[in-house]
Amino acid sequence: MQHILAVDIGGTKIAVGIAERSVFAERGTLARIVTERVPAPGTPAAVVPRVIAIARELLGALSDPDPLLSGIGIAIGGPLDHRAGVVINFPHLPEWKNVPLRAMLSEALGAPALLDNDANLGALGEHAWGAGRGVEDMVYMTISTGIGGGVIVGGRLLHGVGSAAGEVGHITVQTGGPRCPCGNAGCLEMMASGTAIARRARQAVAESPDAGARILQQAGGEALGIRAEGVWAAALEGDGLAIRLWEETAEYLAIGLAAIVHVLAPRVMVLGGGVAQTDERFLEAVRSRMRDHVGYVPLERISVVRSALGSNSPLIGAAVLGLEAAGDQH
Amino acid sequence: MQHILAVDIGGTKIAVGIAERSVFAERGTLARIVTERVPAPGTPAAVVPRVIAIARELLGALSDPDPLLSGIGIAIGGPLDHRAGVVINFPHLPEWKNVPLRAMLSEALGAPALLDNDANLGALGEHAWGAGRGVEDMVYMTISTGIGGGVIVGGRLLHGVGSAAGEVGHITVQTGGPRCPCGNAGCLEMMASGTAIARRARQAVAESPDAGARILQQAGGEALGIRAEGVWAAALEGDGLAIRLWEETAEYLAIGLAAIVHVLAPRVMVLGGGVAQTDERFLEAVRSRMRDHVGYVPLERISVVRSALGSNSPLIGAAVLGLEAAGDQH
Repeated sequence: MQHILAVDIGGTKIAVGIAERSVFAERGTLARIVTERVPAPGTPAAVVPRVIAIARELLGALSDPDPLLSGIGIAIGGPLDHRAGVVINFPHLPEWKNVPLRAMLSEALGAPALLDNDANLGALGEHAWGAGRGVEDMVYMTISTGIGGGVIVGGRLLHGVGSAAGEVGHITVQTGGPRCPCGNAGCLEMMASGTAIARRARQAVAESPDAGARILQQAGGEALGIRAEGVWAAALEGDGLAIRLWEETAEYLAIGLAAIVHVLAPRVMVLGGGVAQTDERFLEAVRSRMRDHVGYVPLERISVVRSALGSNSPLIGAAVLGLEAAGDQH
Repeated sequence: MQHILAVDIGGTKIAVGIAERSVFAERGTLARIVTERVPAPGTPAAVVPRVIAIARELLGALSDPDPLLSGIGIAIGGPLDHRAGVVINFPHLPEWKNVPLRAMLSEALGAPALLDNDANLGALGEHAWGAGRGVEDMVYMTISTGIGGGVIVGGRLLHGVGSAAGEVGHITVQTGGPRCPCGNAGCLEMMASGTAIARRARQAVAESPDAGARILQQAGGEALGIRAEGVWAAALEGDGLAIRLWEETAEYLAIGLAAIVHVLAPRVMVLGGGVAQTDERFLEAVRSRMRDHVGYVPLERISVVRSALGSNSPLIGAAVLGLEAAGDQH
């Protein structure tokens, strides 16, 4: 029986999934997924053999005594050359410089492979099997420790120069805002990622310890322990400062999403990642503020929705890419 | 001999061009263009018959005794339904509400017609015969009294929901900036259009009459007479305030263009309209400031250039659409 393999290498975890080729092509579901912490020290020499070992384990555990691996799809963060299948670098892990990951996995596992950016594959996954099914033009944005995205136009993933289309986390949403490692200031990622929410909360608590008491309590009394999740929990308890921080987050996201709307006017905008998964009320706040920033594009015809595949969007997208590597059209 | 007709209806002028079908398909040039002021009072009842009369005049003046009109392409501003060929409204002229312009011209002139937004057709014109030739992904931005744009992805014009893709003039570039008629604040159009440059100059002159003496002199001593062109002329003479106003304009444009870069990473960005046509030095200032706002997209592989067709980009794009109406693929 023919199988496909999906690989997602992140900054903290690796995931490998397997499916029968025909079953995935029909239903978009993986039979089994193994998720592990990135093995220390996170170098290619540590990570790649581990991915290969998990893949072999998954193939070996099939009831099929003689499984055929037909295609591999690989999702990874950071700048890469999707045509050459090379990871140019991977900011979250050491020693990932010009790693020919596609060829490495393809040769070790004996099947054709394709590689793409994890946010691009999140878009592909949501387009094929999630919240963007049946839509020609859509955008996927993942709001987590950082903010990334992918763009589908005319039913196809847009790569752009240097595979860099969909770098939506670096749209300016606060003129003169804090400096981003990318060189710009006031980037969406600097204002609305989980990391940014925690940083803004720490600042606000330092400036107004009284108003910040509940947030600090959620963090076990340690300012350094403040996380976006705790700020959200405090907001749900009705804490004023926490509510304000989330309203500001909705505003920053709305300005960023409005910029995308003014470029693409996509039919669907899918928000993934932990920050977007919080609550439907937060999403409604984002939609409401988008109306303040968009006048000439018919926003009522643009759906802003949470990802349907949750944290698996990139892995499902990698499986779609695995089908493509095997020779299927998507 | 088969001919095609190109029509561009703007807020102040109408242009109609004609070409032999095969000549335009090969060279992208029009044989003759007639440009006139919009006939008063600017209503469809005044404008449409005038366009038809010019078209008949152009056809009648051909040496060909029995010319065949094969296709008509129509460019017009404002919200429209390009599939239905209907102008939903046209903010610059009165009584343009749900005007079936495509059917009106097609029936009167006896040829198939297609209609699209003027900025979209500017993109199409530059892509087919201008600064974006041979490129898969490009953006066209026209910086004039307002700011509009068009997006080409995979060699095709992107329309988006409500034909509203490319409304790049309404990307936020100044958080908390002046309110735009669209409802947003600090829109690119509110900060960097010709109208906006004049408004900002008037404000600056009112605040610092001494520093503004040269700008005021360029406007004949009348603050209300200040225009972007005069501010540019003062900058060329070395006037400090005028130079600052143009530097700020370059900064606003850079923030807006950077947002587009972060969504699309296009190969080419073509700037048209009067403000962009000023000077290569201004364009170089824009490029330089873009480098401050883009870190993770390889900007060195993105060309930011002036339009090659000047003010004719939309008319040439309309002619390309005329070929499509006639049955050609572009």
